[in-house]
Amino acid sequence: MSDYRYPLREAEFALKALVDFDQLCAKGELEGVGLELAMAIIEEAGKLGSEVLAPLNRVGDTDGAKLTDRGVQESPGFADAYAQFCAGGWASLTSPEAYGGQALPSVLNTTVGEIWQSSNLAFALCPMLAAGATEAIIKHASDELKQKYAPKMVSGEWACTMNLTEPDAGTDLAALKTKAEPNGDHYLISGQKIFITWGDHQMTDNIVHLVLARLPDAPPGVKGISLFIVPKFMVDDNGNLGEANDLRCVSLEHKLGIHGSPTCVMSYGDNGGAVGYLVGEKHNGLSFMFTMMNHARQDVGLQGVAVSERSYQQAVAYAKDRLQGTNKDGSRYTIFKFPDVRRMLMQMKASIEAMRGLALIASAEIDRSHYGNDAEQKAKHGQRVDLLTPIVKGWLTELAQEVTSLGIQIHGGMGFIEETGVAQHYRDARILPIYEGTNGVQALDLVGRKTLLNEGAHLNDLFADIESTISQLAAEPSLKASAGKMQQALEAARAARAWLLDNSPQDKSAPGSVSFSFLMLMGYLCGGWVMAKNQLHAQAQLAEGAGDAEFLKAKLVTANFYFEQLLPKTQAYFAAIESGSESTMALSEEQF
Amino acid sequence: MSDYRYPLREAEFALKALVDFDQLCAKGELEGVGLELAMAIIEEAGKLGSEVLAPLNRVGDTDGAKLTDRGVQESPGFADAYAQFCAGGWASLTSPEAYGGQALPSVLNTTVGEIWQSSNLAFALCPMLAAGATEAIIKHASDELKQKYAPKMVSGEWACTMNLTEPDAGTDLAALKTKAEPNGDHYLISGQKIFITWGDHQMTDNIVHLVLARLPDAPPGVKGISLFIVPKFMVDDNGNLGEANDLRCVSLEHKLGIHGSPTCVMSYGDNGGAVGYLVGEKHNGLSFMFTMMNHARQDVGLQGVAVSERSYQQAVAYAKDRLQGTNKDGSRYTIFKFPDVRRMLMQMKASIEAMRGLALIASAEIDRSHYGNDAEQKAKHGQRVDLLTPIVKGWLTELAQEVTSLGIQIHGGMGFIEETGVAQHYRDARILPIYEGTNGVQALDLVGRKTLLNEGAHLNDLFADIESTISQLAAEPSLKASAGKMQQALEAARAARAWLLDNSPQDKSAPGSVSFSFLMLMGYLCGGWVMAKNQLHAQAQLAEGAGDAEFLKAKLVTANFYFEQLLPKTQAYFAAIESGSESTMALSEEQF
Repeated sequence: MSDYRYPLREAEFALKALVDFDQLCAKGELEGVGLELAMAIIEEAGKLGSEVLAPLNRVGDTDGAKLTDRGVQESPGFADAYAQFCAGGWASLTSPEAYGGQALPSVLNTTVGEIWQSSNLAFALCPMLAAGATEAIIKHASDELKQKYAPKMVSGEWACTMNLTEPDAGTDLAALKTKAEPNGDHYLISGQKIFITWGDHQMTDNIVHLVLARLPDAPPGVKGISLFIVPKFMVDDNGNLGEANDLRCVSLEHKLGIHGSPTCVMSYGDNGGAVGYLVGEKHNGLSFMFTMMNHARQDVGLQGVAVSERSYQQAVAYAKDRLQGTNKDGSRYTIFKFPDVRRMLMQMKASIEAMRGLALIASAEIDRSHYGNDAEQKAKHGQRVDLLTPIVKGWLTELAQEVTSLGIQIHGGMGFIEETGVAQHYRDARILPIYEGTNGVQALDLVGRKTLLNEGAHLNDLFADIESTISQLAAEPSLKASAGKMQQALEAARAARAWLLDNSPQDKSAPGSVSFSFLMLMGYLCGGWVMAKNQLHAQAQLAEGAGDAEFLKAKLVTANFYFEQLLPKTQAYFAAIESGSESTMALSEEQF
Repeated sequence: MSDYRYPLREAEFALKALVDFDQLCAKGELEGVGLELAMAIIEEAGKLGSEVLAPLNRVGDTDGAKLTDRGVQESPGFADAYAQFCAGGWASLTSPEAYGGQALPSVLNTTVGEIWQSSNLAFALCPMLAAGATEAIIKHASDELKQKYAPKMVSGEWACTMNLTEPDAGTDLAALKTKAEPNGDHYLISGQKIFITWGDHQMTDNIVHLVLARLPDAPPGVKGISLFIVPKFMVDDNGNLGEANDLRCVSLEHKLGIHGSPTCVMSYGDNGGAVGYLVGEKHNGLSFMFTMMNHARQDVGLQGVAVSERSYQQAVAYAKDRLQGTNKDGSRYTIFKFPDVRRMLMQMKASIEAMRGLALIASAEIDRSHYGNDAEQKAKHGQRVDLLTPIVKGWLTELAQEVTSLGIQIHGGMGFIEETGVAQHYRDARILPIYEGTNGVQALDLVGRKTLLNEGAHLNDLFADIESTISQLAAEPSLKASAGKMQQALEAARAARAWLLDNSPQDKSAPGSVSFSFLMLMGYLCGGWVMAKNQLHAQAQLAEGAGDAEFLKAKLVTANFYFEQLLPKTQAYFAAIESGSESTMALSEEQF
């Protein structure tokens, strides 16, 4: 069992070094937010996380959600924690003020979100997905629907869910079968949805389900999917709750991890049809759902940081405490002294700093694409969001597997014992590369829509920014070695981009065969970019004599570790990419 | 849930291409064994594995061992399966004929062992550890003890355990506290042991515990540890069982995986002392235990192959079956068509072939170090066993994490659902890098005792053998590209060896800081050596027109995939190694 404490000074450093938070909030709608206010908010969130949510993390694991006669019963203590969460205004941080939100920047929500996810990943999934659903409603639903639903979704008083997957339609949403029949001012929805996270529970009076379904006149494929609001309880014109809608959770999945998060099989319309309301124009539901998905994808990457941080804190505490070496005089020392344990701790630490930094950079790009008056600049930032999203989702969640596995390894045999608690992080983390689009899907998105579709132009923009950071490193005598290592990684990425553009036209298997390696190469490069910025900022602060010198020196060392021990993987990924698709695709089904 | 079928033709190919099995058995004690007999034995084992043990794998997971009033009750069906296992003579394959064994080669036992471990890892741990314990007794115990215990240990009629770890003495056995007091012809043992695999169960009439303890006159540290036989039930001079000894399982661990394998806290001497018998001379127990440990370490590596193979078979079946793409005409296709799924399947397949091959090569080295008349040659093979053992244990179990994780990933959301069964392999596999010496300990063993102690001479012998295989590749026009890639990997390993020899004298943190990367580099190199031998053998067979051409062509392709997609990691590991220990060791406790 582990305590959890959010690393406040990491956030402060990152918001300065990577995000330029004060500049982001210098004018326009975010004017007046500022770093000081942000840190006060983060500190407050840290208390709720450490004191309320974190102690429930193991409760959720051992006493997970259960299906009862009156629906899904969430884990003990979760309902009260949820009430505190909403009472603190944490559900509404980034939502528009028109619906009761606080209109704070996305990057602040990302910092705070790490706290929720580190404290209790299974719990935090509920508000995390709700935020995406709420954003979709506010963007796409009619004013009438928004008036009725948005304020209570924003406040968290009503929870929300995303209903996409069906037994035969996972990644391939074209195969979706759930039906929506017009019926007066509403529609009647019928069909089965699976893998519905927090599809039912007793924490809120109502649950707003967003459901993808097909209208009778829908064309086949993904262009015939519409989005509906389907409330658990009917809502009258005064906002009062009425009778139960025709929907229910018919079973819960028994999962490897996140036991505290009920994963529901939802049945709609067993008794004639669940009442649903069309969101936006018909047949265009998938694009609305992508509003939610893109939001959720960065959040899943953040979950990767968060669960890694939790595992890291536990591993550090164990390494400093566990006696397992004997001096000649019979006195004992801790495993912290062993270089191989240090190697593992450093890998965890360096990975997490790179991951967190990239999540914050990507999140700040969302803010810069939303706020401000320069449409061209906003569009540029929007492109950067699109480019970074699959990297944040894919690379961060892949690294979370390594980091949480190292967390177990540092514990030795105790790591394999469930009561130690570190195995839970490893189990919980394993869903991250799968949900909200598998990492294979992310990799294909990065290579296809985000690279080939614009002929690599958006990548080039990113490379130019990284090159500029490398120039700053090179100009600083003590950081020249870092510049050299980053330059090698950047060249590998450039060569990989060129390879993709050259080879994809004539080999249709090329993008899919190398996409995962490309995602990982880009992840390590972007992680290196974060570490480079960290070094520059730490070096500048040290030169000024500002800040905690030991903390800043640790930043320099950790970045060096990253450049020396992790960044060379970019070369291996490039070697894999330039080998192409032949050996990947050559075997027939029978040869496996 | 998955069927399991041992890949017979993989074994046959490997025994020819990698082990030269017929040559191994051409003369001396193994004369007359031969490939034909071996394949008949393997086929028979395959039946027991598929039909009896494999169906119990999930039973063990969901209905694991339990502690009851009369001791540990193993999972349903396990006792019957164990009886069949012993009745088939599978426990005694390699033991000397003097004690009822069959004196078959170790490499055959390794092939058969993969079957047991793939079928049911938790079950197979019991006979696996017993084999090491039996070997230790036969090598080190007095004739009297051997007469009394060895035959029933060899046959499996009595199970055996290894009792090393204590709450404060895991990797650091110097801290061991269990006491042994002389008492007439025996000793009285008292103390607590933890993490005792299969420490109690009802599958056999008796259990022979091998226990490490300290005599009153023992010097401190590892040179004061003695080894004792401590039977669960006393054995009289006629071999009849008498009353229960003073020992019991006081609790079972609740673990991430291998639920079917009871992990016991054992208490010895709660009522005055458990009767124990000294094995070999006193204070020398640790070296005897290493007889067991070295045996067990290669076996744990083999478990890595085995659990990977089980996951792979399930992933292949799913990929060929799961419809998740829609053609323009509305018809659907399986995920096997997706290049990224193929990439994952190929990585699993290539990894497993390399892992299995290395396990067999290392096991055949055990045979060549035991059998024959040329003492010098035997010593050379013994050195090779010593060198390969940490690589087999470490690298194979690291790869098992990746492979079983890919097995989940190929299943998408279904992989996270426990009923699918593929998550069990992932959970079960997680213990492998920990037990029988963590992979950090393996890495330090490889760098320290196996490399620095002989100034890299044993590594050079191995490099010369690999160089010779590369020359054969280079001489074959179609395999020149393979030769080039292997040469690069070999050069990286040579440079890493040189770096270690150069830097270890002046930097005492150097070996431990880079040891894990060195282990992984050596693993990928040795895996490449396996794949190179596979290519040479397949190519030769194809040239002769012998064998199944599709199977042989798949061998060529799979090796190419390995060389292109996995072997480049050697360069990244070398880059990490030559960066040295500085950034790994620079931070203080407070900076974490």
